[in-house]
Amino acid sequence: MITNPQKPETLRKSARDGQFKSSTAGHAPGYLQANLMILPQAQAFDFLLFCQRNPKPCPLIEVLAPGAVEPSSALGANIATDVPGYRVYRNGELVGEPDDVMYLWQPDFVTFLIGCSFSFEDALEQAGIALRHLEQGRNVAMYRTNITCAPSGSLSGEMVVSMRPIKSRDVAMVVKISGRYALAHGTPVHIGNPSVIGIADLSRPDYGDAVSINEDEVPVFWACGVTPQWVAQSSKLPFCITHAPGKMFVTDLKG
Amino acid sequence: MITNPQKPETLRKSARDGQFKSSTAGHAPGYLQANLMILPQAQAFDFLLFCQRNPKPCPLIEVLAPGAVEPSSALGANIATDVPGYRVYRNGELVGEPDDVMYLWQPDFVTFLIGCSFSFEDALEQAGIALRHLEQGRNVAMYRTNITCAPSGSLSGEMVVSMRPIKSRDVAMVVKISGRYALAHGTPVHIGNPSVIGIADLSRPDYGDAVSINEDEVPVFWACGVTPQWVAQSSKLPFCITHAPGKMFVTDLKG
Repeated sequence: MITNPQKPETLRKSARDGQFKSSTAGHAPGYLQANLMILPQAQAFDFLLFCQRNPKPCPLIEVLAPGAVEPSSALGANIATDVPGYRVYRNGELVGEPDDVMYLWQPDFVTFLIGCSFSFEDALEQAGIALRHLEQGRNVAMYRTNITCAPSGSLSGEMVVSMRPIKSRDVAMVVKISGRYALAHGTPVHIGNPSVIGIADLSRPDYGDAVSINEDEVPVFWACGVTPQWVAQSSKLPFCITHAPGKMFVTDLKG
Repeated sequence: MITNPQKPETLRKSARDGQFKSSTAGHAPGYLQANLMILPQAQAFDFLLFCQRNPKPCPLIEVLAPGAVEPSSALGANIATDVPGYRVYRNGELVGEPDDVMYLWQPDFVTFLIGCSFSFEDALEQAGIALRHLEQGRNVAMYRTNITCAPSGSLSGEMVVSMRPIKSRDVAMVVKISGRYALAHGTPVHIGNPSVIGIADLSRPDYGDAVSINEDEVPVFWACGVTPQWVAQSSKLPFCITHAPGKMFVTDLKG
């Protein structure tokens, strides 16, 4: 994996200035990156409880006070400007992909920062486990499943998972290593047999890019931080703002 | 420890019928018992976020939907009748200790079930660690500390801890064993040196009963589920219902 040893603050400033608009994968290595969900306070209790009930797809790094834009995990940052790309959903429909959401900001907006898998990917690579999508410079493959999340109020839907092909001899070690990173989705939710969780064709992911699976490999599935976006869509949530896939908020926390 | 091998359902029914009014310690061994907090929905987001920010004193077992009285951790139970004793607080003041709170129930009440230390106490005893308060048939000693909890909205206050004297040679093992029980407060928050966390006199606990400490023992402190009650008091929360100390809600979950 080619990494860019920028500091989180530098990367956030570049995103704020409109100069950095790409995926944050491989940038600011060693720092915790976060999936983003911003909701009006009227839906915030339901969503917080959804995260509490579904900690594998939605491990909470931080929840900001209503209206606040400065996370304590990144002092001096602005959550409404420092992400390289946003998505705006109304009634479950994607209505925009702005670079900045200050113009939409309301005093009752509550921001949720949710862990992402980059932390355990770093750890796997350091343990000598090659990750196909990183080798090939692609986004990880993500799939909607038939695994029902525990609902909360108006929020319900199925889990989205990411898939990484792992050599059979390495699967147990990968389980152990990823299990140390609860904020990065922890242990896999499913190993092998994609059809059992409703995935008919691994070559056609719902998000991200397909990768090949070799004969000595098994597909290993982790709960994915795109789950809240899919739940917002399938629940027709009145309004929310998320990051654009792959364009994470980079915190100052060490992963 | 003398245990009463009642089933959770039997114990809850006895509490509901007004026949069982004592501490649940030692009853229905092996089942998860819970601290109780019931709040109007207007304060529920702040409290849920308080728990998320303070997982050591407030490990969440379950949060019920607004108005619901039947936990999924105890199907058929009624949270408003099946606890052996309740406490009602208004503006941070204790205003009543009823046996039943159905007469107070409102459709917007949200119930939080918070883990308690009974689970790891069972595990410690099974590992041959004698616990003084259980040997002496007393309630565990609990103290207010100067450890500030992470605030959330209108909620703030200091952590309450429970203390158990542990032989110096056993402290490391006790850390390891209790660490396996995240829903029962996990590892200790402080070991030795009570004055550092603002405890001037171990012989005068703020809740529960004092126990003696032998020369070969160290006081070991765990985050305690009484913390939310103290926070509700010090934050002058408009209204809440809790269990009476020691009189837990007994779930059907295996600890």
